[in-house]
Order: sequence, then C-alpha cells, then structure tokens
Amino acid sequence: MQLQFLGTSAGRPTKERNVTSIVLAMPEPHNFFWMFDAGEGTQHRLLETRLKLNKLERIFITHLHGDHLYGLPGLLSSRTYNEGSGPLHVYGPKGLRSYIECVFQTSKTHLNYELEVIEVEEGQIFSDDSFTVEAAELDHRIRCFGYRIEERPRPGQLNVDLLSRLGVLPGPSYGKLKRGEDLTLPNGQIIYSSEVVGQPVKGRIVTILGDTCPCDNATSLAKDADLLVHEATFAAGMEEKAAAYGHSTILQAAQIAADARVKQLAVTHFSSRFDSTEVDALIQSVNAVFSNVVAAHDFLELSVPKQITS
Amino acid sequence: MQLQFLGTSAGRPTKERNVTSIVLAMPEPHNFFWMFDAGEGTQHRLLETRLKLNKLERIFITHLHGDHLYGLPGLLSSRTYNEGSGPLHVYGPKGLRSYIECVFQTSKTHLNYELEVIEVEEGQIFSDDSFTVEAAELDHRIRCFGYRIEERPRPGQLNVDLLSRLGVLPGPSYGKLKRGEDLTLPNGQIIYSSEVVGQPVKGRIVTILGDTCPCDNATSLAKDADLLVHEATFAAGMEEKAAAYGHSTILQAAQIAADARVKQLAVTHFSSRFDSTEVDALIQSVNAVFSNVVAAHDFLELSVPKQITS
Repeated sequence: MQLQFLGTSAGRPTKERNVTSIVLAMPEPHNFFWMFDAGEGTQHRLLETRLKLNKLERIFITHLHGDHLYGLPGLLSSRTYNEGSGPLHVYGPKGLRSYIECVFQTSKTHLNYELEVIEVEEGQIFSDDSFTVEAAELDHRIRCFGYRIEERPRPGQLNVDLLSRLGVLPGPSYGKLKRGEDLTLPNGQIIYSSEVVGQPVKGRIVTILGDTCPCDNATSLAKDADLLVHEATFAAGMEEKAAAYGHSTILQAAQIAADARVKQLAVTHFSSRFDSTEVDALIQSVNAVFSNVVAAHDFLELSVPKQITS
Repeated sequence: MQLQFLGTSAGRPTKERNVTSIVLAMPEPHNFFWMFDAGEGTQHRLLETRLKLNKLERIFITHLHGDHLYGLPGLLSSRTYNEGSGPLHVYGPKGLRSYIECVFQTSKTHLNYELEVIEVEEGQIFSDDSFTVEAAELDHRIRCFGYRIEERPRPGQLNVDLLSRLGVLPGPSYGKLKRGEDLTLPNGQIIYSSEVVGQPVKGRIVTILGDTCPCDNATSLAKDADLLVHEATFAAGMEEKAAAYGHSTILQAAQIAADARVKQLAVTHFSSRFDSTEVDALIQSVNAVFSNVVAAHDFLELSVPKQITS
C-alpha cells in the first residue's frame, strides 16, 4: 500500500501546494488505486505521477467544500479519454449526486464508463474479499466524513514440513486446512487446522480524515491505524481560531494520533499563511505528544509496510 | 493592451498545456484585466503570472463545456481571499447563473464581494467610456459565443502651435474644440474644431472566439481586428473530423483571419494529439493563406500595439 499526497493546502492553492487530494495505491495483486477528495487541479497533479485514471477504482469525498470537490467533474470527464476505464464508484455525503448531475447537465458531459455515486451514512460503506471501508462523521462546519480502510487479514502460512511428516500431500486438503477446517485422514487421524496453519497476518489500517475539530470519531476511526492522515490547518496555540473554523491545530492532530495509538501520523491541509519552512517548524512543536509524524507536501509518498506478524 | 494565454489545450489538460483561459490586461490608466473562459486550473495558472484576482474586473465565458468552465467556481471562491476585490461581472450563455448557484449551494460558498452574472444574447453586451464588447453566436455543438472587444477612439491631438498663433489660450476653449465644438472668438472669428484637432485615433480591436466551425459570425466579429484568437483543434486536412465535433482546423482559422483582414492571428485550443513540435509544424502549413499567425502556448503574451494614425 502506497499513499501519495496530490494536494496539501487548505482552502485555496498556492504555488507550492494544491488543494486536497490523496491517492492510495493498493498492494499487489491489485493494480488499482483509490482517491480521497479531489480539489480543483487534482487531474493536473495526477499527470505528474505514474498513476493513470483508468486504474482509479473508487473515490471517497470527505465533504462538499470546494477545496475538496471542485476537481471532481473535470477528473471524471478526463477519465473518459483513458482507454480501458471500467466502472468508477464515488462515495461522499448527501448532495454529491445532485452536484455531479447539475454540473454535467450544464456542460452536457457524457461519460463512456459506468459511474456509481454512493451517498454514505456512518458505518461500513464498502467491503470485499480484500478490504473494508468504514465511514464516521467528524466535527466540521458542514457534514464531513473520515474513512478507515482496513485490509482483511491474510490466512497464516501452512506448515508444509509438518504436513509432509504427517503424510498430507499438497492438494485440496491444503486449502481446507488453510480455511480453518480440520481434516480426517483415511487412517482416522484428525489433523487440526490450528496445528498446521500459522497465525493469520493482520491487515493494514489506513485512516484518512476530512476537515475536523478534535472529536471522538476521529480517535475511533484512527484506533491502532498503521497510518493516520489528519488535517493540521493551524499551528499549536491557535486552537480558538481552529475551533471557530471547524479545524484542528497540529497539536490536536498529534493528540488524536497518540490517543488512537497509531503507528504513523501524516499531517496535511496547511493554511496558506505557513510557508514550507514554517510547516517544518510546526512539526517540531508536537514531538513531545507524538513523535512519528510527517508533514505532507505535494507528491509525498508514504509506504504502509506489510504486517509481518499478527 | 496585453493578451496572455493561461491554457491552450482542447478538452483536457496535458503536462504542457492547461485547458482554455485567456486574460486581457487593459491599457493605462486602467489597472484591471478581463478573462475569457476559465477551464479547471485557471486560478493555478494565474498564480504563475503577475496578475492578482482583485484586479480581475470581468469574465466572459464563451460556452459551458467543462474545459472552458470548470475553473470558474474555484477562481470566484479564491478571489474572496484577495483584499480589495470589488464587484465582478461574469458574462456567458444561459445556464451560467444556475451552474454557479448550484455549485455554490453544494459547497456552501459565500463570496465577500459583489458578483453579477449576465446571461448574454447577441449584440452589444457591454459599453463604457473606454470599451465596448459585442457578442455573436458561433457554430459549435452547444451554444457558444465569440466576443469582439473594441477600444473607443481617442480624440485627435490639438494643434497647439496653430491655436497659439490664432490667439486661443489654454483653458476651457481647448476642451470645447477637442470635443468637436467650434469656437467664436471675441473678435467674431470662428475657429473650426476640424481645423485645429487632428483625426481621432482608432481604438484597438481584439476578437476572441470560442469553439467553432467556420461561420459568418466568426468573420464579422473578427473584421479588421488587430488581434484574432481562433481555435485550431485540428490540423489542415482534418476538416471532416473538425466538423463532426464542431471545431475548426488551423487552415480554416487562417481563412477566417484572411477573410476578416485581421492584423494578427493567434491559434489555440490544440488537440492533445499534437505535441509542441507538431503544433509548430501546423503553423507552417497555413502561411500561404495567412502569414501573421502565432501558435499559442501557455503563458504566451501578445501585445496589441496602439494605433498611431486612424
């Protein structure tokens, strides 16, 4: 799993930072990526990466403020030009569907692929054999969601040496044992799955939050995450201003990371009042609260390492 | 008058070219600029120029296709952050107002300056002491306008030497003569305005057309223009394809320029199938039809020189 920031500025673009978008490239054997928010110019940023729009499978919009949304119509339109574009699923708060319909009605846009728009409520909003996604409401000026992406656990390794000594040969029996079923040999001996299959390997957890003041749902969505992406619009000490605008300071983001016991915190969505040097200084200010923190910049890539043991 | 291209690609952005937007900086003593179309990422392009959003006075949208429009909401929103932003007037086809309303309703956007949206019909759509703007419909897949911007003629120079010899001293009489009124001296002598005031100096004419097949209105809007901006989505020889999509080839653009007897032609809105080298080659292909032609690229600036004589 590889997360990349396409835009890290709050409210409006600057020369260095575009408005919000984040992509998450899914691990092998998957060859697609997901996107979180699509501020204006997101498709332009994508042109500077290795990612192609026909590999974009799902978009999750946290909330409908323009700096998280205005790049969506252009990106959806341009995807039509990419050969081999399959269905695309776009998740977000109520109002997303009528926005897309109104914009495309105005511009007479017709897509040549299937677009599914899902207006989400709290809870599990997606699940397949490989991943689940949970949404919960945050505390912002308008309805805003955070998303917790969990990779499903992978079954433990078969102990092939032991099976060989027990006289179990490769074949359907292996699959049965791996699925957790016990096996009775022709001689009546029972092979217990738990004895020949290692512990399942935990999947990775990535939590990406929209704009928010500190709130319980931020902590619960982020609980034990391998990587938490949290906004840090303001500097430590500006908590009052942050609250007035429905945002967080970098110190509040660090506290959420600490409370949720995440492995790594990436802060983003910086007010344009801070230049890059100042952003680096902001990071220093929170080390006592949470030390494994990185300040995002446009095009920053973060690997989310595989869990080795459960 | 200084025209600058912010985006010169058709349909979708490429690494080198953004989608359409053109700005026209007005001559001294005016310190504002106008904009024609606002494809996605226009505000990002503006950040790379000397122009500030609070000096943007009028926006003219040619048509409501996304590659000419999707940058408008973000640009209007960001203008709110620019101190000293006065009223902004946005002109375009019917549907523009409901588009802006729907997008801003979704994103809960409130502007801190006055926004006037004018849905235009053919004819003179703007006029003040310095400029007039005329709109006419072109021939595209959806309703699309071209705009002819005319600078008003400046009164001719007073022949101060002659007036001095005739005994007319500087003062209100000078203004009267300059306005075309004749003057009767105390001795009964009549000073004819036409004898002491030079010819009025013609104003400049800039014609900026939206997407179009060749049509009579393109020629009439461009008549005798100092500068014509015409789309050239396709190469010479691709006339059939151009017609199918409601566009022009570069050869057709050159023919309009020749028919309208413009001084200079700038072609833009190139299909992303052409790289920059190929675009330069396209230009060579039309020299026999119209020679004073330039292929636009992003950030290209073109001065429109003052008329010296009428």
